[in-house]
Amino acid sequence: MIVIKIGGGAEINLEYVCADIAALAQAGKPVVVVHGTGKEADALGERVGQPAKHVTSPQGFTSRYTDRATLEVFVMAACGKVNTFLVERLQKLGVNAIGLSGVDGRLLEGTRKDAIRIVENGRQRILRDDYTGKVEKVNADLLRVLLERNYVPVIAPLAISYQSDAINIDGDRAAAMIAGALGAEQLVILSNVPGLLQNFPDESSLIAKIDKHRVEQSIGFAEGRMKKKVLGAAEALALGVRQVIFADGRVVQPLQRALEGKGTTIE
Amino acid sequence: MIVIKIGGGAEINLEYVCADIAALAQAGKPVVVVHGTGKEADALGERVGQPAKHVTSPQGFTSRYTDRATLEVFVMAACGKVNTFLVERLQKLGVNAIGLSGVDGRLLEGTRKDAIRIVENGRQRILRDDYTGKVEKVNADLLRVLLERNYVPVIAPLAISYQSDAINIDGDRAAAMIAGALGAEQLVILSNVPGLLQNFPDESSLIAKIDKHRVEQSIGFAEGRMKKKVLGAAEALALGVRQVIFADGRVVQPLQRALEGKGTTIE
Repeated sequence: MIVIKIGGGAEINLEYVCADIAALAQAGKPVVVVHGTGKEADALGERVGQPAKHVTSPQGFTSRYTDRATLEVFVMAACGKVNTFLVERLQKLGVNAIGLSGVDGRLLEGTRKDAIRIVENGRQRILRDDYTGKVEKVNADLLRVLLERNYVPVIAPLAISYQSDAINIDGDRAAAMIAGALGAEQLVILSNVPGLLQNFPDESSLIAKIDKHRVEQSIGFAEGRMKKKVLGAAEALALGVRQVIFADGRVVQPLQRALEGKGTTIE
Repeated sequence: MIVIKIGGGAEINLEYVCADIAALAQAGKPVVVVHGTGKEADALGERVGQPAKHVTSPQGFTSRYTDRATLEVFVMAACGKVNTFLVERLQKLGVNAIGLSGVDGRLLEGTRKDAIRIVENGRQRILRDDYTGKVEKVNADLLRVLLERNYVPVIAPLAISYQSDAINIDGDRAAAMIAGALGAEQLVILSNVPGLLQNFPDESSLIAKIDKHRVEQSIGFAEGRMKKKVLGAAEALALGVRQVIFADGRVVQPLQRALEGKGTTIE
């Protein structure tokens, strides 16, 4: 079993990624896909006059500020445009994909953080009415029922809170939780960098291998979005996933290259 | 088994409709929900500067003209906003809803009509690049797998063509096909009128009962959108559905009233 996280950035080549997913599915390998939404949510926000607002926590993690109006835009981009057309693209390649978000059948459940602490202009303040949270439970039964029937689940980065509010979640960490819950062997995180870089953005400083016992130390030199990916990797490994791979989603045969070790492999 | 079609019009009271769905689900009745998208697709089209365009066929049926850009708006409204937030609303009421569109797992399959004949200013012409079609096959196995596990499927009005293009479909006729494929006893079609009216829009001219052998004759006095509902009813009855009910989705206890005969019952 492989869980594949496809980044939501602009440069990811979905044609290449989906061709590799089709090859894995045709080889009979169970696959679960989790996707990001960043670029499309930003684009839709601009089109409807509600530009995205990103905030930074005191720990230095960035996230999308999501009031109810932003949540609507995010849902339209995530569950609508990205998820449905990714499913369509995979179906064209003969993959029997089925799109879900964490809201569906309570697939991903967690605590909503309705108040978040952020740093703005060097000062901390609290934002309220936020619809974000963190995945704590995965409805693995639902995924297994689908996988047993040879469907490929394609999952949008939303969860449902214990009070049944739809919440925006981090896709990398959701993918880690899913990989852990399913006992996946591998988690491949494709983004717009070749892997974890010792000196961001110098791509020649790619770190090929990290020992699983040293992964948390890597957060120090991970930059921006990569911080959450490293956190997700640590969570997945702690849940028993054998191998986490950060790899480049912009190149031909991105999954094949990732599985051949041409990214950052953590095990 | 009851299949419930919730119209996509502005006046439908989702709070009342969902309360009744929850009551049915809690009573252990298997339920499948199909929803429309009209109002939300129109609203999003306006917001992104791509207003909806409706066309009329030579036979007098109206439909939404759907080029690829319009399809994207439609998908964001249908699979994004309407479907996800309907699932969220049902989850808040304790219903384990799961949102799908006909693209997912090839749930609804049919022929894409890439060229459609329309009447414009009294003259016929052909529109090309249309992403619309008609449902011909239902993946009933997928729905049964979910129903057996007490999920309530909530279905957005899209299908997948045999060439794997996402296509916009008529929700009423899709609901009819689903009801037929599942061997449902009842199909309830909730919209913003009390049922089939002898003299539209005079609501006092409501027809309480129609014999199933005379339903096709009713198309004559059905107005606008109601024409397709009558067509859907005829299709559902031909597929073995015992009873089709057109009822008012604007009132309290809309489903309970429908099942008590306070709409137009066709059997």
